Amino acid sequence: MSFILLSIDETIATIVLNRPKVNAINETVVEELSECFQKLAIDPNVKAVILTGEGSFFSFGLDVPEFLSYSKDCFTRFLAKFTELLSYIFLYPKPVVAAINGHAIAGGCMLALTCDYRIMVSEKAKISLNEITFGSTVFASATSMLRFWVGGRNAELILYRGEMYLGDDAKMLGLVDEVISKENLYEAARKVAQDFANKDSNAFQSIKMLLRKPVAEEINKREINSILEFVEIWYSEGTQEILEKIKIY
Amino acid sequence: MSFILLSIDETIATIVLNRPKVNAINETVVEELSECFQKLAIDPNVKAVILTGEGSFFSFGLDVPEFLSYSKDCFTRFLAKFTELLSYIFLYPKPVVAAINGHAIAGGCMLALTCDYRIMVSEKAKISLNEITFGSTVFASATSMLRFWVGGRNAELILYRGEMYLGDDAKMLGLVDEVISKENLYEAARKVAQDFANKDSNAFQSIKMLLRKPVAEEINKREINSILEFVEIWYSEGTQEILEKIKIY
Amino acid sequence: MSFILLSIDETIATIVLNRPKVNAINETVVEELSECFQKLAIDPNVKAVILTGEGSFFSFGLDVPEFLSYSKDCFTRFLAKFTELLSYIFLYPKPVVAAINGHAIAGGCMLALTCDYRIMVSEKAKISLNEITFGSTVFASATSMLRFWVGGRNAELILYRGEMYLGDDAKMLGLVDEVISKENLYEAARKVAQDFANKDSNAFQSIKMLLRKPVAEEINKREINSILEFVEIWYSEGTQEILEKIKIY
Repeated sequence: MSFILLSIDETIATIVLNRPKVNAINETVVEELSECFQKLAIDPNVKAVILTGEGSFFSFGLDVPEFLSYSKDCFTRFLAKFTELLSYIFLYPKPVVAAINGHAIAGGCMLALTCDYRIMVSEKAKISLNEITFGSTVFASATSMLRFWVGGRNAELILYRGEMYLGDDAKMLGLVDEVISKENLYEAARKVAQDFANKDSNAFQSIKMLLRKPVAEEINKREINSILEFVEIWYSEGTQEILEKIKIY
Repeated sequence: MSFILLSIDETIATIVLNRPKVNAINETVVEELSECFQKLAIDPNVKAVILTGEGSFFSFGLDVPEFLSYSKDCFTRFLAKFTELLSYIFLYPKPVVAAINGHAIAGGCMLALTCDYRIMVSEKAKISLNEITFGSTVFASATSMLRFWVGGRNAELILYRGEMYLGDDAKMLGLVDEVISKENLYEAARKVAQDFANKDSNAFQSIKMLLRKPVAEEINKREINSILEFVEIWYSEGTQEILEKIKIY
Repeated sequence: MSFILLSIDETIATIVLNRPKVNAINETVVEELSECFQKLAIDPNVKAVILTGEGSFFSFGLDVPEFLSYSKDCFTRFLAKFTELLSYIFLYPKPVVAAINGHAIAGGCMLALTCDYRIMVSEKAKISLNEITFGSTVFASATSMLRFWVGGRNAELILYRGEMYLGDDAKMLGLVDEVISKENLYEAARKVAQDFANKDSNAFQSIKMLLRKPVAEEINKREINSILEFVEIWYSEGTQEILEKIKIY
């Protein structure tokens, strides 16, 4: 794996996004995450997964400069893969805890929203679905998951404004569940993961599916169209102009 | 237009309900609102719309005394038009800000609920879905929009009690987003509208549809039946008796 | 009736679960509750119903020791009856107020969630959907009703943790609407029931159905499968082992 560090400590697996400096998501990151999650799904020793990032970013979101070189078709295919990963983790049979170590922006925030619990560091780090600020829309998965977590009103507030939220504000909005100092983040995430791991895994999975399948079905009905619309807007003149100014290194 | 004042200042259009003294909604008001919103939808200069009222009412809701002279059929046809207007504004392609200048009652509250953002004056004005207090039900659009904004629990509280809420309480319940003094209302609404107008309009519209289309589809499945039931209850003896006591001038 | 006390005072009926010591739900309790609610549904004098329990429990939930002697088939049939009762009360045409006099656990909490309003005593009593703690899943009705009341985020928190909540915490989460001292519980419940009873009953019923039918349809689509899965997990070795340790007398 080039951009993913995986470690397993007793029954808890930790997946670290490690693509310096901002853990931007490209095609390889998505493939490696998918592979990694799939491997852990069938590993009987693994009872819970922690998803976190290396450095000052959880994830910046999509690697915009890299995708600007993609053709429309290739980018569409990539987005299908990315949103499949989102839905896959949203319905992941084991508990997944997001340890949001740093900024979780756009696609990075979406990744965090797939998890069962989000703990975010209290210093500096910001979380945001800021797509609208660079002229981009989002996916059906993003709006449905967001509405599931924060309700319709906060979902509109978050998506229409595209603001960057510190941990405490994000918690008030329902974007994250817990805010903690950076030095205690990993320990806190492990504690939550361990609590999950101690539960009966069949009962956990069944309850998770009961809650999330209705959301997943709504996503499924709308995701392809949302990708096609996303691509149209992404390649529009105005949006391309803004995207070309985005630097990630 | 008899009951609607329309003005456009740079990219912001303002629609003022102006049917003294309480901006009660009759057939002409609905037709003029529809026409006005449709015209603004295709005006490329208009980037956002403010909806407000003249006087001490945003809107009293339906013009009960006038509708008491309607036949069942005519009233049913009117309600189809009114709920179509609600759904049309709920899915309006441009941002709509409700500047709730005064009381927003029943159908008047529903109008406000279609918007993207609600700012309400802090003095005296009350907002309410008080249909139950005069023996009336509501529409599928009202319950679905309300649940979208405030969740199931507050939706039941608001509809079962039919209470009149001052701005601060309405904000706590999620019925409005912001409360401000009357003298600053319009300026605040313009600021919000301007923030919306500055966003990429395709991205905005796409995000709005992703969030609201699932709600609109649920409304669509149920609206006709809800109108038929509304009419049955409206023309029941007990409800007619209460309605006949309602005065609006 | 063996386990149900029914009294009617003017227009308010009160149903008391009375199966010492913990009001555990067995097949007879479900049958008597169904019969009782059905009888009150067609009694024109009854305008609202209060559901409460005798002793220090509202209800412990299912009578685990009794059901351990059931065959899989019989238990499946019982669960179909129990979830039908939940859906029946959730769509009950008259207002139902839960006066949560004591612990409301698992199936007991689900019963409370079907009502239109929940008042809970402030002392000692706890409310919980703690199925996961004894290796059990829940039903589609439980997840859908819970999400309706508390949103997706709190629903996951409540179900994943299986914690026991005192009244004030339950209110913060949205599990109950009001917390009151034990001595004032019944009077408060009567007041709420009376407020409901004073409303136009057709309008009330229509509004309730508009809000809840979409939830009921989602439940209906998933309930049978959720029961089958519930049974599989219930009869798994690990879960049976825990269940066998549960004592209720």
